[in-house]
Amino acid sequence: MTNDSENTSSDEQPKSGGYSRRDALKLASVATLGAIVGGGALLGRATPALAKAAGAGMLSPADPLNIVIAVYPGGTLLDFAGPSEIFHRLPNTNVRYASLDGGYVTLEFGVRYGKTERLADIAKADMILVPGGSDLTVAMSPEYQAQIRRLAEGAKYVTSVCNGSLVLAATGVLKGKRSACHWAFVNKLSEYGAIPVPDRFVEDDNGRFMSGGGVTAGIDFALRVAGRLRGQQAAEFTQLLIEYDPAPPFHSGHPRDARPEVIAMVDKVLPGASKGLARVPGVR
Amino acid sequence: MTNDSENTSSDEQPKSGGYSRRDALKLASVATLGAIVGGGALLGRATPALAKAAGAGMLSPADPLNIVIAVYPGGTLLDFAGPSEIFHRLPNTNVRYASLDGGYVTLEFGVRYGKTERLADIAKADMILVPGGSDLTVAMSPEYQAQIRRLAEGAKYVTSVCNGSLVLAATGVLKGKRSACHWAFVNKLSEYGAIPVPDRFVEDDNGRFMSGGGVTAGIDFALRVAGRLRGQQAAEFTQLLIEYDPAPPFHSGHPRDARPEVIAMVDKVLPGASKGLARVPGVR
Repeated sequence: MTNDSENTSSDEQPKSGGYSRRDALKLASVATLGAIVGGGALLGRATPALAKAAGAGMLSPADPLNIVIAVYPGGTLLDFAGPSEIFHRLPNTNVRYASLDGGYVTLEFGVRYGKTERLADIAKADMILVPGGSDLTVAMSPEYQAQIRRLAEGAKYVTSVCNGSLVLAATGVLKGKRSACHWAFVNKLSEYGAIPVPDRFVEDDNGRFMSGGGVTAGIDFALRVAGRLRGQQAAEFTQLLIEYDPAPPFHSGHPRDARPEVIAMVDKVLPGASKGLARVPGVR
Repeated sequence: MTNDSENTSSDEQPKSGGYSRRDALKLASVATLGAIVGGGALLGRATPALAKAAGAGMLSPADPLNIVIAVYPGGTLLDFAGPSEIFHRLPNTNVRYASLDGGYVTLEFGVRYGKTERLADIAKADMILVPGGSDLTVAMSPEYQAQIRRLAEGAKYVTSVCNGSLVLAATGVLKGKRSACHWAFVNKLSEYGAIPVPDRFVEDDNGRFMSGGGVTAGIDFALRVAGRLRGQQAAEFTQLLIEYDPAPPFHSGHPRDARPEVIAMVDKVLPGASKGLARVPGVR
């Protein structure tokens, strides 16, 4: 039932000094433990091995990480509630929420969330995260797209959860890039020149692009991002705090496991879903 | 790594006509399939077997389900964002959010959520859900406790996620009842006369009391509640829509799996956590 895409996702980090990225993170964890437990600060110093493995343009855990979560009317709360719960708990990390008009944003099911900043007021972000939604009309509007394109072009990390990757792809920044998406929408990525990858976590360009599959995949996505950018120990600390020890009572989380009649129910509310070509308002 | 408490949770439904509750739900799923696929409505009619198995005071999927999620300042968004994402997608189910003063509520990390109704304005709910938080000062106040006690006493289902069970327990309604809680707080339940059970999902009194463990356990909790009250097929449909096919990159979601140094980090920010006796503001 697990869908660990570690082996299928693209572009493993270049080795440095005989260590893989994973090894480097492990080393960093050990190196930072003293600082963490001794000083109360959750952030340690990056080891040389980590800094090397991180590669050009990458952050080390010692660098501040500024994340902008770009929300919009019709967005899905859980797409970013998982990641935000993780990111807020990471050391040296700042999470901001922004929308086209600022203020409160009415999400799917009428839930209101805020207050958000105005996207236009944010000069730059280390990471932009675009969550998905059930209505992408605003997210696909020229005004919103222009803001997302601007922030993505200036960001070290360009990320999405669920069909937020369609919003990113529509700006053009994912041209030729591998990306995840909610299973019901994933094949629409190619209509925007991105490469659909039906995995729970996908990366490209040495991790500059990172994306999660549908809705709850945001949690797995965010833990991977956390491990990558803030160190494995910080990610594990967060996982323990949010007790992420999943035990789904049914085996219906992906079309490969779901019963045909359940897939048919989704196809009924999202025509085209089983082909990965579902549509929501705002998507051509 | 999974922690399926199906076999350890209390009080299986009484058998009726040779069917267990689980059998009855399966039967109901088959019976409702025609209605679902044919009519576009997600709700079918309950079979006699299900109605019998449901027992006194239980709902059948044909009965409307009104859920009140009781939020408060300092609450944790993901504790209820998981359940709400599931409950909003269930047939014949209405989800309301309420707080002491109504309006917007400032959650953990300064996130604002709303608009909520006033708890005092809600006469009755079929189900009350109390999520947890990092500051329980308001949730433990006499005014808040009085509202929760009133709604819980009138509800068919009394539920919680994370240390929301401490809020419920403090009202007295969990006296002698088995309950889940975030692992770092679970043993504090006994200080309020409830029975701590360190599982991801716990029930008592034939499902009148249902509770989830910490934060992300709310997703597993809500899928079980969904299967119980709206039928397994509706739960599976929801699981597929939110692509709940977890693949944690690390094995650190519970103290039984986490590395000792990571548990020590949590003990540092939440003293007493590893004994299940962590404290947050508002909890004695």
